[in-house]
Amino acid sequence: MTRISYLNGQFLPHENCMVHIEDRGFQFADGVYEVTLFKNGRLIDGEPHIDRLFRSLNEMKIEHNFTKEYLQKMQLDLFEKNNMSEGICYMQITRGATNRVPFIPKNLKPTISATVALGKKLTPEEFEKGVSAMTHEDIRWKRCDIKSVALFASSFINQKAKDLGFDDAIFVRDGVVTEGSFANAFIVDTNETLITKAPDNLILCGITRNRLIEMAKEKGMKVEERNFDVAELIAAREVFLTSSSLIVRPVTKINSKIIGGGKAGKIAKILSEEYKNFIG
Amino acid sequence: MTRISYLNGQFLPHENCMVHIEDRGFQFADGVYEVTLFKNGRLIDGEPHIDRLFRSLNEMKIEHNFTKEYLQKMQLDLFEKNNMSEGICYMQITRGATNRVPFIPKNLKPTISATVALGKKLTPEEFEKGVSAMTHEDIRWKRCDIKSVALFASSFINQKAKDLGFDDAIFVRDGVVTEGSFANAFIVDTNETLITKAPDNLILCGITRNRLIEMAKEKGMKVEERNFDVAELIAAREVFLTSSSLIVRPVTKINSKIIGGGKAGKIAKILSEEYKNFIG
Repeated sequence: MTRISYLNGQFLPHENCMVHIEDRGFQFADGVYEVTLFKNGRLIDGEPHIDRLFRSLNEMKIEHNFTKEYLQKMQLDLFEKNNMSEGICYMQITRGATNRVPFIPKNLKPTISATVALGKKLTPEEFEKGVSAMTHEDIRWKRCDIKSVALFASSFINQKAKDLGFDDAIFVRDGVVTEGSFANAFIVDTNETLITKAPDNLILCGITRNRLIEMAKEKGMKVEERNFDVAELIAAREVFLTSSSLIVRPVTKINSKIIGGGKAGKIAKILSEEYKNFIG
Repeated sequence: MTRISYLNGQFLPHENCMVHIEDRGFQFADGVYEVTLFKNGRLIDGEPHIDRLFRSLNEMKIEHNFTKEYLQKMQLDLFEKNNMSEGICYMQITRGATNRVPFIPKNLKPTISATVALGKKLTPEEFEKGVSAMTHEDIRWKRCDIKSVALFASSFINQKAKDLGFDDAIFVRDGVVTEGSFANAFIVDTNETLITKAPDNLILCGITRNRLIEMAKEKGMKVEERNFDVAELIAAREVFLTSSSLIVRPVTKINSKIIGGGKAGKIAKILSEEYKNFIG
């Protein structure tokens, strides 16, 4: 079966989805994106994802006329056209194509594209074993609250971690742990308090992060949104990364230090189960 | 006449130059570029530009087989096919297209594209009048030595300056003046010493910058490559921005402060003339 993707109002064979070399997304990283999980015929937290997309577009002053309803339906239609009952949808909007100028051009027609994929699911064994991560200086720009396509730094450091034998990287800026290369970072301290950085310009305010915090509070857990440093990270009883595609991903080794006895922790398990119930 | 651009080995009508939505340049800002001036049938400092392109590719670990000769000839051919005797060539190389992955994929075929344009030339009046610039926090990533396509921050702040009535922005990181939004920054102090930031990971090591420093030294000027702060910038006798497209561009107002009596300074004029002689 031909893989179908979406581009500027049309559902097309994936290989035919082409954009111009002067698209501002291609020449200036002038675009934003969202990744949304799809299961049992519905987008998981579809609305908050689109709210965040609109926020990113607004912060970057990318003019558009897309409605929430249109973008939701487009994503659902795309899964249907690919005969998929679950997966992830990647959706990207750039400012559009124009002659190269250093400033922000007005009145462009934004370029919108979307693809779907199966996505990776952690097996129970993978979840239990967790992943290793190295800490690395956060060299990204200072507007990580915008879900921008300028992802090279994240990708490059993710690869650097892999080259050094780790699965992922956790970023540190001026001594403060910010987030993973493509995920938010949580720790559980020895008092079983769940701690994650408060949202500001230095991290992406994750949709899955927010949902998990809500679930934790409903479960009566203590939750603190505040800065923490590498010492606290290393001393944590549990560390886990959260994202829309992998939900909760325990980190069982940081640099040379084994975390939580090298196994997924209690809180990670509870929240992961809770999220599974939520998505159905 | 149809405008011709270059894409992956072919010279094509500009509007037909399309890349896939899963090109890493489009989805991850995973690419680099160069802008080279062309006059009297030759590329100005064509070789240093390609050396820097190769350095950028190497730093980002983008595999490629391009030779200096091929890239020089391609640019010259592109001007010829567009019947242009002068202008600027924009050349971009990205890692290429593949299924979206967070790490750095290997063995991709890089995407190479190039366009030519007339470029803007400053009239003598424009040169004399200079431009205004506001200082702004440098929010870019910490590898500004790579000429990466992740240009949104530069473009956004350039526009912010324009919205506030300035022509451009000069970036400041941790108190140190780094560079302009798309140009290197020079000051001339009251002792007629030419000062510009030494190249490191926080600025692009400009080809025109380097050439002008060489010319200044040949003229017997005192040149210092070192950090300077906003106080020194504001107190300077002259301030100017340098780039391959506009060469030397005097800055005659910074924030609310008039620089050099609001006119282009002596050193800027000497270097601009010297560079004009150099390009012929």
